[in-house]
Amino acid sequence: MKQADVVIVGGSAAGIEAAITARKQYPSKKVIVIRREERTLVPCGIPYIMGTLGSVEKDILPVAMLGNAELIIDEVTSIDREAKTVTTAKGEIIGYDKLILATGSRPLVPRMPGTDLSNVFTIRKEIEYLEKLQEALKQAKDVVVVGGGFIGAEFADECRKMGLRVTVVELLEHCLYLNCDEDFCIRVEDKMREVGVQVNTTCRVKAIVGDQKLDYVECEKGLHFKADVVILALGVVPNTELASDAGLEIGEQKGILVDQYMITSDPDIFAIGDCAEKFCFFTGKPTAVRLASVASREARIAGANLFQPRRRRNQGTIGVFATMIADTSTGVAGLTERAATNLGFDLVIGEAAAPDRHPGSMPGARELRVKLIFDRSTAKLIGGEACGGVTAGEIANVLAQAIAAGMTANDIALAHVGTHPALTASPLVYQIVNAAEEAIIKLPR
Amino acid sequence: MKQADVVIVGGSAAGIEAAITARKQYPSKKVIVIRREERTLVPCGIPYIMGTLGSVEKDILPVAMLGNAELIIDEVTSIDREAKTVTTAKGEIIGYDKLILATGSRPLVPRMPGTDLSNVFTIRKEIEYLEKLQEALKQAKDVVVVGGGFIGAEFADECRKMGLRVTVVELLEHCLYLNCDEDFCIRVEDKMREVGVQVNTTCRVKAIVGDQKLDYVECEKGLHFKADVVILALGVVPNTELASDAGLEIGEQKGILVDQYMITSDPDIFAIGDCAEKFCFFTGKPTAVRLASVASREARIAGANLFQPRRRRNQGTIGVFATMIADTSTGVAGLTERAATNLGFDLVIGEAAAPDRHPGSMPGARELRVKLIFDRSTAKLIGGEACGGVTAGEIANVLAQAIAAGMTANDIALAHVGTHPALTASPLVYQIVNAAEEAIIKLPR
Repeated sequence: MKQADVVIVGGSAAGIEAAITARKQYPSKKVIVIRREERTLVPCGIPYIMGTLGSVEKDILPVAMLGNAELIIDEVTSIDREAKTVTTAKGEIIGYDKLILATGSRPLVPRMPGTDLSNVFTIRKEIEYLEKLQEALKQAKDVVVVGGGFIGAEFADECRKMGLRVTVVELLEHCLYLNCDEDFCIRVEDKMREVGVQVNTTCRVKAIVGDQKLDYVECEKGLHFKADVVILALGVVPNTELASDAGLEIGEQKGILVDQYMITSDPDIFAIGDCAEKFCFFTGKPTAVRLASVASREARIAGANLFQPRRRRNQGTIGVFATMIADTSTGVAGLTERAATNLGFDLVIGEAAAPDRHPGSMPGARELRVKLIFDRSTAKLIGGEACGGVTAGEIANVLAQAIAAGMTANDIALAHVGTHPALTASPLVYQIVNAAEEAIIKLPR
Repeated sequence: MKQADVVIVGGSAAGIEAAITARKQYPSKKVIVIRREERTLVPCGIPYIMGTLGSVEKDILPVAMLGNAELIIDEVTSIDREAKTVTTAKGEIIGYDKLILATGSRPLVPRMPGTDLSNVFTIRKEIEYLEKLQEALKQAKDVVVVGGGFIGAEFADECRKMGLRVTVVELLEHCLYLNCDEDFCIRVEDKMREVGVQVNTTCRVKAIVGDQKLDYVECEKGLHFKADVVILALGVVPNTELASDAGLEIGEQKGILVDQYMITSDPDIFAIGDCAEKFCFFTGKPTAVRLASVASREARIAGANLFQPRRRRNQGTIGVFATMIADTSTGVAGLTERAATNLGFDLVIGEAAAPDRHPGSMPGARELRVKLIFDRSTAKLIGGEACGGVTAGEIANVLAQAIAAGMTANDIALAHVGTHPALTASPLVYQIVNAAEEAIIKLPR
């Protein structure tokens, strides 16, 4: 029987980061990573395989990142918590002192007719499957993306870059509606339409229709969208079967229940990433934000806590995300106005827009718009959105630090910022600062 | 006699931002801005007039920013603090309740022979003067930039873009040596050399030589550099004559002395921007960081404090700066390793480099290198440097928020960050986080 100090089940973003952290924090400990796949994908890069990168080969997570952790290609089929062992599909039994579950998630498949037709794809993190999808897209003329969240929007944009006629069908009022407020969603939708993507919101899919060959997507209100390929981008389901079979508790958002130290209901078992339950930074309540960046952060917590379980505490998920559709980037940190209102916050909003270079005549200058969401009672920043050029992603990270640090509108109005003509807005109109100033005049004095 | 609630002397970045803030915070108050120039320049844009923008006209600060503050084109020649009036060159007397001095700075002219030769320029914020400089550059073949700080480096890069042969002469060991640590300076110098700029460091200029026509720059150790134009980029001297003539105290860094509320030794007079003394965020001691972004921040403090003088407090200058030479950007926040060591800090350093997009095969991906400087005794971040593509400027702003919030290495290792293939590094190698992880393993447990 093989034995390791740390066994990690799963070797995508969370599993790899946990192995790196474990080796860094506890260099004398033996770490084994067990995953099904010889090679895994950079998860966020998956949409970009289709058009921008052009091949799956360009989106492989380098195995060298694992350093001197041992990698075993196999599938863990059960956990014996008494014996502290895992059993694999190939029949191996491996003993652990500490176990980390990083089993990820799988695509949600909606209950409707036609999802089993050929050329209907979900977004699986599997090399061969994605190669098949890419091949199908190369043969196609019309593609329908069901689900206009950021993964769906990114797939639509990539299919458009491949020269396909693309239709997005979204159930909610807007694309990206779970990530952004309406005005920011509309900017993304406008951009999608500008580059030729057909966008249909408040639109429920009833069935995918075809006879042997895929034909069209049928929606309510009599709408039909011709499709040679359908991509279902409707979110993910955490992979928790291994954990629940072993008797570990599952949370209300369907992830493996963990505490603030990423420890499950078994003190020797951690869970991280898409398979683990998440808690909201602002409310402490379960939330369903599943992102590679969140997974990586949880892995760094679990990896450090393995043998000193109180070393790093998870204060909850702020939720920071960025996307780019055509030439327009959107970055979001924390709560949207809509989400915060639904949670019962009394809000003060500040907005500002200005060129992202200065003077505005600098080549490549783009408008960057920032919206800040403050809790009226504390004046603290609880959310922010940015839309503009390539800096919008790091702008979201500026906002995330301000949120994490509990910065108030006044703190942000006095934020220390550096500026440069080719890199940022002018100091006189730096959007985050000016949005805070706009909020301040609406706050009680 | 004219009378206003607020009189602001100077209408560049600081003066304009003070007027905007005063009008926003105290909408019923009458604000007058008095400045010499009908039109002023975007100060940070000045180097870019030469090559990138191509004309002074593209670098004008829009006067509309002043909103409904009154603008008077005139020069204030004296302050009567008893009568609470200012007198102008045109003989006007204007009464104030609160006075803000935003008189800026002027270029330092070194004491050496030849600085008065024609075609020897400093970097004055004056439209006609800069037009003359640009005209001279258009006629030139060889230009020598004396001073390799970031303004000198930016001018050198712009002259290079105009097709000139450019030589930079810097007294210190490296260009940008007051802003960055050696390794980051060397990256910038390498880039300058790569694009054809001749860089001479540890090189003292003895004289500028010419007989009627400018001929060459003479340095120690027998070095001569041919020059049709010389640009002196050696820093600035605060304009404090008006203040000192009125009996206001001057600080040891030669700025008008102010307290944390931007109030001078006269409780009704504020001073902001380049003319005002600065204090270091880390030590509370006088410092000489003069940047438009710092000026703008001080203006927002003074503007808010005008009639409620304790509304906003200046906790000192962190110093956040960014520059771009050719295609390489550098962003810095807080103390360099060298500066912190000189101030007596015991340091722990963490560094990380990775592509700024992910996977690294994404088009446009560049290496972004980050160095973090932590105070060993508190594990708090006190400085950071970034070098890479266009996001390095906002990366410096992420670092600045972390510094301002007192984030420790562990806080930064657990920073909430958003990532996207086209916009940021991978979550597994996000440079700021990984540099913190590198530092943590060197910190006492």
